Amino acid sequence: MTESQTSRIVIVGASAAGLRAAARARRRLPDAKILVIDRGSYISYGACGMPYFVSGDIPNVNKLRETPYGLIRDPDFFKTAKGVEVITEIRVERIDRDARKVFCTSVRTGEASEYSYDKLVLATGSSPVILPGVHIDGKRILTFKNLEDAITIRKSLETGKIEKVGIIGGGFIGCELAETFGALWGAKVVLIDAAPTILPSILDTEMASAVEAYLKSEGVEIHTNCPLEGITESEGAVSIKTAQVTFEVDCAVVAVGVKPNSKLAADCGLAVGKTGGIIVDDRMATGDPDIYAAGDCVEVRHLISGKSLHLPLGSLANRQGRVIGSNLGGGNDRFGPVVGSAAVKIFDMNVAATGLTETSALNTGFTVGCAWGTFTDRAEYYPESQNVHLKLVFDSGSGRLLGLQGYGKGEVVKRVDVFAALLKREGHLEDLLDAEFAYAPPYAPAVDPLYSLGCAARNAMLEGLQPVSPAIRCDDRVIIDVRQAHETESKPLPEKDTLNIPFPEMRDKWETIPKDRPIICICSKGVRSAESVRFLKDRGFSNIVYVGGGFLMKPAG
Amino acid sequence: MTESQTSRIVIVGASAAGLRAAARARRRLPDAKILVIDRGSYISYGACGMPYFVSGDIPNVNKLRETPYGLIRDPDFFKTAKGVEVITEIRVERIDRDARKVFCTSVRTGEASEYSYDKLVLATGSSPVILPGVHIDGKRILTFKNLEDAITIRKSLETGKIEKVGIIGGGFIGCELAETFGALWGAKVVLIDAAPTILPSILDTEMASAVEAYLKSEGVEIHTNCPLEGITESEGAVSIKTAQVTFEVDCAVVAVGVKPNSKLAADCGLAVGKTGGIIVDDRMATGDPDIYAAGDCVEVRHLISGKSLHLPLGSLANRQGRVIGSNLGGGNDRFGPVVGSAAVKIFDMNVAATGLTETSALNTGFTVGCAWGTFTDRAEYYPESQNVHLKLVFDSGSGRLLGLQGYGKGEVVKRVDVFAALLKREGHLEDLLDAEFAYAPPYAPAVDPLYSLGCAARNAMLEGLQPVSPAIRCDDRVIIDVRQAHETESKPLPEKDTLNIPFPEMRDKWETIPKDRPIICICSKGVRSAESVRFLKDRGFSNIVYVGGGFLMKPAG
Repeated sequence: MTESQTSRIVIVGASAAGLRAAARARRRLPDAKILVIDRGSYISYGACGMPYFVSGDIPNVNKLRETPYGLIRDPDFFKTAKGVEVITEIRVERIDRDARKVFCTSVRTGEASEYSYDKLVLATGSSPVILPGVHIDGKRILTFKNLEDAITIRKSLETGKIEKVGIIGGGFIGCELAETFGALWGAKVVLIDAAPTILPSILDTEMASAVEAYLKSEGVEIHTNCPLEGITESEGAVSIKTAQVTFEVDCAVVAVGVKPNSKLAADCGLAVGKTGGIIVDDRMATGDPDIYAAGDCVEVRHLISGKSLHLPLGSLANRQGRVIGSNLGGGNDRFGPVVGSAAVKIFDMNVAATGLTETSALNTGFTVGCAWGTFTDRAEYYPESQNVHLKLVFDSGSGRLLGLQGYGKGEVVKRVDVFAALLKREGHLEDLLDAEFAYAPPYAPAVDPLYSLGCAARNAMLEGLQPVSPAIRCDDRVIIDVRQAHETESKPLPEKDTLNIPFPEMRDKWETIPKDRPIICICSKGVRSAESVRFLKDRGFSNIVYVGGGFLMKPAG
Repeated sequence: MTESQTSRIVIVGASAAGLRAAARARRRLPDAKILVIDRGSYISYGACGMPYFVSGDIPNVNKLRETPYGLIRDPDFFKTAKGVEVITEIRVERIDRDARKVFCTSVRTGEASEYSYDKLVLATGSSPVILPGVHIDGKRILTFKNLEDAITIRKSLETGKIEKVGIIGGGFIGCELAETFGALWGAKVVLIDAAPTILPSILDTEMASAVEAYLKSEGVEIHTNCPLEGITESEGAVSIKTAQVTFEVDCAVVAVGVKPNSKLAADCGLAVGKTGGIIVDDRMATGDPDIYAAGDCVEVRHLISGKSLHLPLGSLANRQGRVIGSNLGGGNDRFGPVVGSAAVKIFDMNVAATGLTETSALNTGFTVGCAWGTFTDRAEYYPESQNVHLKLVFDSGSGRLLGLQGYGKGEVVKRVDVFAALLKREGHLEDLLDAEFAYAPPYAPAVDPLYSLGCAARNAMLEGLQPVSPAIRCDDRVIIDVRQAHETESKPLPEKDTLNIPFPEMRDKWETIPKDRPIICICSKGVRSAESVRFLKDRGFSNIVYVGGGFLMKPAG
């Protein structure tokens, strides 16, 4: 194909960011020529839904490719309905910025082609990180990035070829796949990660430990601190070799993260950050004012840490695509810094977070305060109420909100979403106490968990009621268990040498507590123990803290 | 009892506000004497849970009175665990502000008593509004305010004495009780309201109509615009007389709202507002610096309208109680203006709202813009995804957010809670586009409904893509139905004379549309029709709008 005589918009990548930019640009520029080039064969599919296709929850793969009204989002659809030309199985090899051209190769035929652009959008996405010693064969040793991967795995599951699976990587995909393989297909799952805990980008250690314990209770075998040395395949059997042990499985899925596809940009001299992502300004333009970039191939700026990071989330890609579409059409839309909300469902547990973890807040240089809490997500007495376990991270000097993370069978995500709205406006603890929640027993307790957590944090900051991590080691401290006898009996503390004083008896019995030793109070959820600390502080006990979130957040053993 | 020699805090009313104030004051003032006086026999119960006790979802009434760790919240509990004295079945008759005394009568014995205070807290709650011509007998003609009411009704249901019930009032309680009686006990329910639509404090007409249609589909008989003339009882049969018709039922529940119990305050010269609520400042103090008031007996200020209103919500009462407790202890806590979030579950439908309705925004004097949308609450392809129907109200000059209301089987409340967080910070449409949601297919679509709704509103405000209410009458306008044939066939429009041009065919067929008549586009959810409007505007059609929220928000027939 020769260079077109008409100026046009060329978009590289036909996924969320690219197609959203195309559609929006089309609306703003009814007469523009818009061409989207993709190297894959499937475009515009719901990649985040792939685990649910593999699990069988979504019976047909086309469900991931359909509009709500039942049309497949293929190039024909985009041409007819959206007025956007999409060509697939064409790889863009090179950008000539001076000539304003992209040079391409057909994936199928190897035929070369080139296209001129007036404006270029890079939405090249990301690729799975491949570890040394691993050869992805696409059959029994796979990544989990493309629809083809999902189809291969689903077929193998359906034909009974996978009874034991090894998942390398305890991130979002790894955790989702643990459920996919384990819950619906009854496969034995081994989850392996080199890091000390799973989901480290959103959960601090003590939170991750609880999620790991839950995964184990669902039959998943977890090996953290377990660096991979290689994966080999021989006659249908796959061996996963780690420093400690070798696992024999039927199938290995490598999901250790993705890296931005920024080579095309780098090769033509556009700036790429330390994260590997293309650097863009808040209009999503690169250093070349005629070239924009969006989605998994760019880096973004974190609102709170101020740092650049690579955050490959479909929700951000969509928003970025719209910004570019507007700006291509003469607009001046902005994409600001992010707080990085994320969620993942693991079996029946909801895990979500926004903002900074305690670890990342400390690394950023904040003076960090934390509060933990176990709450029911609905009114305590409402039959369907479930627990949520939350950790709040804040600046202990100013009270500025820094992050929230949570897990539990209850409604965690709502609290994270509300918290994110406050974070975006640089909210403080007072904003949690001022927040209004639509209350009815099926939706929330009269006092919402976020409100209670805000109170706990303020009590820590202003009134010295100090919680400690539920993962704390008690060492030589006196443990006062303020739960009722029926609670203590059914769920005893692992620590010996505890003093049981049920909270309602504290007013009568406090004088039996030794004053000369450091004290830790614990109850079930962290409320009675905090109140006990206050009571005892008023009576002259000074070296005294309570276990945030209570027994129900304490790691077993 | 004679006047105590020791100064103390007296609190009138042992429900959420009063007891929260007591507990917080106790923590701040370890040595203060704190006395709570209540005229009822049950204290500190979860009144909002009563419908679920009546329905049988909550088997035992004590569940509404228990702490999470299984103790009944009775006076003994408060004395032992909290160090707060509570006396019940004592009515406070009069306050002498000069002498700083309250004068009381025992409900049981009529015996008089008096108590001195240094600080007084009024948490006297609210009482049901009783209509003229209605005599509440507490047996077959009841209000639904106290635990005694709930116990009476539950007993009658259990013994089969209620087969048909009349509910007067289509507010929160009325709608909840419709489910309570209908869904779990199979009673025939007639819901009667003098107003044109149900839930007018949170829903505009077109939204309420949809909820009414749903209630009818669940077997509830609804009569709006139906003023009550009286209720009489004779030999176990109850007659509900209205202007139009008389209903014979086994039981009538009158739930037409509550009024603040502010007489005690008014009688001692404290200011009471037009709403009937006690006037307090932002420290929750009345005009007398030694008297505070909180909960259902006070009025609050609306952040957006600036108006005073009576907003009897348990969630606010708790927060107000904490503010008073802090301030009694020498603090300077504030309770700011509210946005008024509320939610109610009706059968399987979730209804929630925050801020102003279109009606209330117009009454306040805003230049109002609206956007409607039908969305799936999770990823479209996720098996458990359900629809939510949202209406956004904003200032069409500045883009300031004014309110959100929604209904649907999907997750409405989360969107309302996030929106409320933005409202509290005086957010604008841009904030919806900037909001971050924790995205995974089980929790949200990649593009959250609030984001899409924000886009629709901005498109209306800045780009002339005007939605109209789904309740619009089409009159002489040309209706262009841009749905696919399979949609049009299975869910035809009631209007005749519609032109069917499926959205993907619009680029081919637009020239068949008459240019000289006003046009309304409609699709299923409001997305394709909005895009069609944009497409047609670009081709010279000017008198053209689309149905916000689409066919799925359109009232039947």
